[in-house]
Amino acid sequence: MADETEIVNYLFKRLYQLGIRSVHGVPGDFNLVALDYLDPAGLNWVGNCSELNAGYAADGYARINGISALITTFGVGELSAVPAIAGSYSERVSIVHIVGVPSTKTEKHGLPIHHTFADGDYSAFKNISKTISQACITLDDAKIAGKEIDRVLRALPVDMVLSKTPAQGLDNPIDLTVPRNDLDTETEAVEAIKKALYGSSNAIILVGVGAMQYRVLKEVQEFIDLSQLPVFLTPMVRAPKKPQEQSINTDLRVNSALYGQEKLMLHVETSVHSQFRGVYNGDASGPEIQQAIQSADLVVFIGPLNTDFNSGGFTSYTKTKNTIEFQSNFTKVGYATYLDVGMKLVLPRILDSIDVRKIQHPQTNITKVEKPIDVEAKITEPSDQEVTQQWFWGHIGDWLQEGDVVVAETGTSSFGIMDTRFPKGVTAITQILWGSIGFSVGACQGATLAIAESERPTRRVILFVGDGSFQLTGNEISTMIRHGLKPIIVVLNNDGYTTERKIHGPEMSYNDIQPWKYRKFLKAFGARKGEYKNYVVRTQSECYGLFNKGNEFSKANVIQATS
Amino acid sequence: MADETEIVNYLFKRLYQLGIRSVHGVPGDFNLVALDYLDPAGLNWVGNCSELNAGYAADGYARINGISALITTFGVGELSAVPAIAGSYSERVSIVHIVGVPSTKTEKHGLPIHHTFADGDYSAFKNISKTISQACITLDDAKIAGKEIDRVLRALPVDMVLSKTPAQGLDNPIDLTVPRNDLDTETEAVEAIKKALYGSSNAIILVGVGAMQYRVLKEVQEFIDLSQLPVFLTPMVRAPKKPQEQSINTDLRVNSALYGQEKLMLHVETSVHSQFRGVYNGDASGPEIQQAIQSADLVVFIGPLNTDFNSGGFTSYTKTKNTIEFQSNFTKVGYATYLDVGMKLVLPRILDSIDVRKIQHPQTNITKVEKPIDVEAKITEPSDQEVTQQWFWGHIGDWLQEGDVVVAETGTSSFGIMDTRFPKGVTAITQILWGSIGFSVGACQGATLAIAESERPTRRVILFVGDGSFQLTGNEISTMIRHGLKPIIVVLNNDGYTTERKIHGPEMSYNDIQPWKYRKFLKAFGARKGEYKNYVVRTQSECYGLFNKGNEFSKANVIQATS
Repeated sequence: MADETEIVNYLFKRLYQLGIRSVHGVPGDFNLVALDYLDPAGLNWVGNCSELNAGYAADGYARINGISALITTFGVGELSAVPAIAGSYSERVSIVHIVGVPSTKTEKHGLPIHHTFADGDYSAFKNISKTISQACITLDDAKIAGKEIDRVLRALPVDMVLSKTPAQGLDNPIDLTVPRNDLDTETEAVEAIKKALYGSSNAIILVGVGAMQYRVLKEVQEFIDLSQLPVFLTPMVRAPKKPQEQSINTDLRVNSALYGQEKLMLHVETSVHSQFRGVYNGDASGPEIQQAIQSADLVVFIGPLNTDFNSGGFTSYTKTKNTIEFQSNFTKVGYATYLDVGMKLVLPRILDSIDVRKIQHPQTNITKVEKPIDVEAKITEPSDQEVTQQWFWGHIGDWLQEGDVVVAETGTSSFGIMDTRFPKGVTAITQILWGSIGFSVGACQGATLAIAESERPTRRVILFVGDGSFQLTGNEISTMIRHGLKPIIVVLNNDGYTTERKIHGPEMSYNDIQPWKYRKFLKAFGARKGEYKNYVVRTQSECYGLFNKGNEFSKANVIQATS
Repeated sequence: MADETEIVNYLFKRLYQLGIRSVHGVPGDFNLVALDYLDPAGLNWVGNCSELNAGYAADGYARINGISALITTFGVGELSAVPAIAGSYSERVSIVHIVGVPSTKTEKHGLPIHHTFADGDYSAFKNISKTISQACITLDDAKIAGKEIDRVLRALPVDMVLSKTPAQGLDNPIDLTVPRNDLDTETEAVEAIKKALYGSSNAIILVGVGAMQYRVLKEVQEFIDLSQLPVFLTPMVRAPKKPQEQSINTDLRVNSALYGQEKLMLHVETSVHSQFRGVYNGDASGPEIQQAIQSADLVVFIGPLNTDFNSGGFTSYTKTKNTIEFQSNFTKVGYATYLDVGMKLVLPRILDSIDVRKIQHPQTNITKVEKPIDVEAKITEPSDQEVTQQWFWGHIGDWLQEGDVVVAETGTSSFGIMDTRFPKGVTAITQILWGSIGFSVGACQGATLAIAESERPTRRVILFVGDGSFQLTGNEISTMIRHGLKPIIVVLNNDGYTTERKIHGPEMSYNDIQPWKYRKFLKAFGARKGEYKNYVVRTQSECYGLFNKGNEFSKANVIQATS
């Protein structure tokens, strides 16, 4: 490696080292020069229809790949990506957002250029980005740019792009290790945890989304396997459903939903055969699950995040006295808090020193899940009745295959899919916390691309999106066609904002939308005949017929279901 | 009027009083109840495809109607509108953005609900809005809500929507008068201005966008008529072009462009026959215009705003010694600044007291514009050559009619249309300063709706948009169809981001886009046969044939030109 390299090259090489192969975004006057350096760094340029779509796509890509990158231009471009980046920040998805900004000289003089408010203030957009980012940095000092990049980058002034920065950092992978906990406090915490575990007779494990966010699922998996304790997940950590939970919830508040990140989920998902007991969503859970949680004498709660849709409307509380809580920066055993003892380092110490023979195993009234798929539930006599939400989500699981990636839009899809049983190894992507409609079409593009670049490129990606949400970002199908990506897209055409009708104004015209002819879009977006297909199903038997065509259907790319 | 009324009713009645008849936006869980109050207040709900589109549409509506309103929902919705609202703020367009937010109780307890970052901080989005707004207020005190609304409102908590607020304010129109200037300072300024005018022998008037922003075009028009001085406009204040200026600029930096607000523009536009001399855009102007400005011994500059695209790349400076500068909050005569003497009140005082016989009239070398349209320029022998940018913008003016509204997208359209001569009374809409691609399709919807609601509903609205920009927000054609709006949409299909190819990477694939079949979209978006039409033209003679069909073409609604 040469002594010096262009800042942009340093950045792109780092992205490559982090596992990124495709970069999403839209070209703009302040980022064009940087784009020239993608190809030499081994990075593919996607080029989305809009920055909002690009942001959603980068989110979907990151949920499969672990991390993604997005390039936009100053002001007009970066702000269009704000809702997507805010969603990723909210949902704990890792995206490097690179913004091409005016030259440092222009900014220094505060010139009232285009894409500004002409008030000489160039910091407005940076401040907005700070609000929705974990870290945010402007690259305006070439000497330290490489180091700055290594602590996560965001803005790339056009005139700095080609400035040289020390390159030796690139010789070593970026250091992603976690700072050490205070050893004495950590030792105390480990002893307290073991004491609580050995003293319990009816302990359970409850896995929160923090376990995914702070990348301890491997450790959690080991703890599950070692301890053999029963496992419950919170809604943002999804797993195949138990047949017993197949009640249809129509009240929004009591619906739980799903979330997933393929690389991380895999381990937990493989565990469901033995110890998985269900999804705990507070008062929205089945009575058996609620009772199991409430009657446990110890809840090992790893990474709790009690949001409304993730906790049955704030009813998922466990008793402090009986809870061990693992967080990123503290551990709590009963009422005692061990500050600066984060889960990433304390969990391995527990695994190293625990004597599992001392853990007593509880008898819960929740039956073990032997088969994630309930074969008896297969449709034997499909009728000519129209497809309803209840019918659809209850039956679509029969058609899913091991390893599928399921993207579910906010609304009827994300709520409905909780009633769908997943085969082993299915990855689910949705926005439980942020809940921005339109997200899923972009995310589907990004996820499909990430799968295509992965070690298992033949995994199917299946998007479920309502007609209302589809109208926001449906143009992203154009990008899928452009890159030859072939997900299966199911548009649930129920004539408007159905979830909102459930909340307020079921008959009000503001919940109506313009009826589109969904079958026209493939051609309109430039798909060649024979490469992509449309299907329309209206009745249960039509839907059943389509979903059971097997190979024929697997080749299908865009279908439309009416419910 | 009852003593009390619901806050939402107070707000909507105020919007009605301000001249708003249609409200743009997207329904969301936190704004649904408020939407019920639109119809009783006499307001029509548009219901756009996305919040971004809705924001652009509200901008277009406001540029015709003077003011508009937009309703979105907390977090996900409001952030999607951010790039549009930032553009309106940048371009000085008045939009009331109403955001439905969670209940005051939820916020008080900092509950980690959906559409947040689950960090208990509800102020993040409000702070973002503050960055891009003139005024920003949360309605959480019913007693003073009416008064707060009267100083411009933005956020409307769901539980406050139906709280009662004193209603008597609604009996009187909202007070929009400007605070008085300091009288002594104002008197001094008026005397200094008159002295400078009487002492000059070669004065000119230069009208900046501030004259539109602070609504003094009526006064400016009077001053032009009274003084009979030659008038130049800056690019953001558009007027019909002089034939002499018909040079084609391909370098982006030296292109000027256009901006307009119908209600305000009308007066200046009618003046072009007598005293209009051209558009001054610094070094990007023709040499005659540059010489006229530089040789003037007095420049009366009303509302300067020197941004890059508005000043030939910061070359539009006039000599301080020879300049009278009118701003919203100060007046400058030569080197003397009169603080707190704003143009809105000082201009009428000049008009009242000036003795125009004392003003000497200059001889400039800029010929008067007798006919805004150069009839000789009509195409006599159209050829079978393909339509080029230069040919198109030079000839499209022949087809424009008096009173047309022309919406030009950022890029080749906004730059190209500077070479188009406008008939009298044409209103032009574009984004000179903000320059966000995708803006124009939404703005076209809003402008067309505002024209339909205006006193002259038969005025044509014509959108010129490039294929790259169209891909961002083209779905808004769906909303036009839904509301029966019939603008003429010209998609300039030049296979990618042409303006960006001019800046950097002419052959690079990142400036390519997916080729769409534009004629398929009317059907796809649900247009009924016969109600909307598609045309495709490729050669100059095809284009000429279409544009000269007269009535036939006026009925056309969506056409596509290849250039």
